[in-house]
Amino acid sequence: MAVYTDITEAELAAFLADYPVGRMHAYKGIAEGVENSNFLLHLDDASYILTLYEKRVAREDLPFFLGLMEHLAEKGLSCPLPIHRNDGALIGELAGRPAAVISFLEGMWPRDPAPRHCYAVGAEMAAMHRAGADFGLTRANALSLADWRPLWNASRDDARTLRPGLGDDIKGELAFLEANWPRDLPSGVIHADLFPDNVFFLDDRLSGLIDFYFACNDLLAYDVAVCLNAWCFSRDGAFDRASGRALLEGYESERTLTAGERAALPTLARGAALRFFLTRLYDWLATPEGAFVVKKDPFEYLRRLHFHRTVGTIADYGIDDEGDEAS
Amino acid sequence: MAVYTDITEAELAAFLADYPVGRMHAYKGIAEGVENSNFLLHLDDASYILTLYEKRVAREDLPFFLGLMEHLAEKGLSCPLPIHRNDGALIGELAGRPAAVISFLEGMWPRDPAPRHCYAVGAEMAAMHRAGADFGLTRANALSLADWRPLWNASRDDARTLRPGLGDDIKGELAFLEANWPRDLPSGVIHADLFPDNVFFLDDRLSGLIDFYFACNDLLAYDVAVCLNAWCFSRDGAFDRASGRALLEGYESERTLTAGERAALPTLARGAALRFFLTRLYDWLATPEGAFVVKKDPFEYLRRLHFHRTVGTIADYGIDDEGDEAS
Repeated sequence: MAVYTDITEAELAAFLADYPVGRMHAYKGIAEGVENSNFLLHLDDASYILTLYEKRVAREDLPFFLGLMEHLAEKGLSCPLPIHRNDGALIGELAGRPAAVISFLEGMWPRDPAPRHCYAVGAEMAAMHRAGADFGLTRANALSLADWRPLWNASRDDARTLRPGLGDDIKGELAFLEANWPRDLPSGVIHADLFPDNVFFLDDRLSGLIDFYFACNDLLAYDVAVCLNAWCFSRDGAFDRASGRALLEGYESERTLTAGERAALPTLARGAALRFFLTRLYDWLATPEGAFVVKKDPFEYLRRLHFHRTVGTIADYGIDDEGDEAS
Repeated sequence: MAVYTDITEAELAAFLADYPVGRMHAYKGIAEGVENSNFLLHLDDASYILTLYEKRVAREDLPFFLGLMEHLAEKGLSCPLPIHRNDGALIGELAGRPAAVISFLEGMWPRDPAPRHCYAVGAEMAAMHRAGADFGLTRANALSLADWRPLWNASRDDARTLRPGLGDDIKGELAFLEANWPRDLPSGVIHADLFPDNVFFLDDRLSGLIDFYFACNDLLAYDVAVCLNAWCFSRDGAFDRASGRALLEGYESERTLTAGERAALPTLARGAALRFFLTRLYDWLATPEGAFVVKKDPFEYLRRLHFHRTVGTIADYGIDDEGDEAS
């Protein structure tokens, strides 16, 4: 949650003059998104989100992110619609940063997700995977298998002091994943960061997906694996089979997992847990003590990784193991 | 700018059930106010601000702050209107903290105030002073003359290393202010923190005053002195006489300063500059290096204090010195 850049009302008015939008009534920096500066705009026609892209988002990736949102919104998914400038562009510049205006989605993210939320997010994710199939741009996943070893190497020396045996644990995990990562599964556009704070609900109905700034082309089932980690563990750290079942059944209500995807899910889930462990660990070590940011505990994801190691088949995530018969 | 406390949508729905307001569509933590956690609420009837009072605001002061906003709004001033709960109370409890819902004011605070803004804020402040005259509650200023010496003592040892001669400078200033502080000027309810970020404009018209959490009973002209410091210095640190004149003429369009107030203004302005120097200095020394908060330079206010020492009469602030004849 962050506003890194403030903007003057004169700068903002000049910026918005290039957009086909109403007159400005108010703008507030909002505590959402950890990578960019976000403002909620009240204009006289509607509310919008203004995003200033800070240095962690590469400018050359913006056409992919914004184009994807537009593509998905046009296909009927509830996600923010980027507003074109009067000259047709999706990206402007404000306060020396690339900036975009997107529609504001009403809704609230579930702080305490229940199985009904998991079912809805599973279904919407599958719909997104289908809708992304004919999107014209591609972007490699910048936080995938090949990136985890360098990420670990950057934290390794400081991290060893945090927990005895951590070095061997991660070394073994990297070796396992490098040897066993699936290669021939269906791939396409994935969200790659579909945590509860990126999914809005109104009256228990999913009202929107946001924050496509990790979206990329990768294995579709890896997105499912991210969500198993992000949505299906209870506060005490235990896997919740009812949530897992709901997520997977929701997904399959829109797209059937192949036998290969079902078989690979425990490995993909280990990889997803490792990815969030490593990025959180990196941020944890890089954040000074006493800084006013919420440091997210990386070891939460190490515990999830350890759970996935115990998983034999997809049945352990809550749904029938019928995929085995078909493989 | 801060959101210290997050709240779940279930907590918020339960909290709002006690208010006569519409159904919840969205809520966002906003980067506004340094003392409290603030959320912008989109309900189906209107937008509101929800404030959770963190530890720097004393619970026993809340009836004064919220009652004052209601009193002023009823008198026609544009300030947030606190919403009464169904049981009549203005203060509820949310996430273990006192909390209130107030109306959302459209408008934007001027990042680069011009004399027309200063005139408007002067006039609105005087209207506020008049409207506050029959407000029934009182609250002593917790950051007035008697509080400055203890505040300095708390920072003194660490502060001396920041600038040579600082100790003697502040010691001399405290002695001067304690000997010369005016005692018999008109007093009443003042805002006491009327900085640009607490004053909203729409199309150059003042649309609202916010953040009454330093409001108190004190000398009315002290509020003017705070604004001289907060509004009338240019970015290079020089006093801007056009802004000073506009502020004072705006004020006098609604309430005439007495001869005693005019004569005391330079002393009051020194005090106001010292107050903001001391609180910023305290925060500066208490904030760890590397923390992700904007540290406000305290020495900006020491330079303003030094300017006020050179002021002979109110004429140096930009308006005619007619008060001398009347005194």
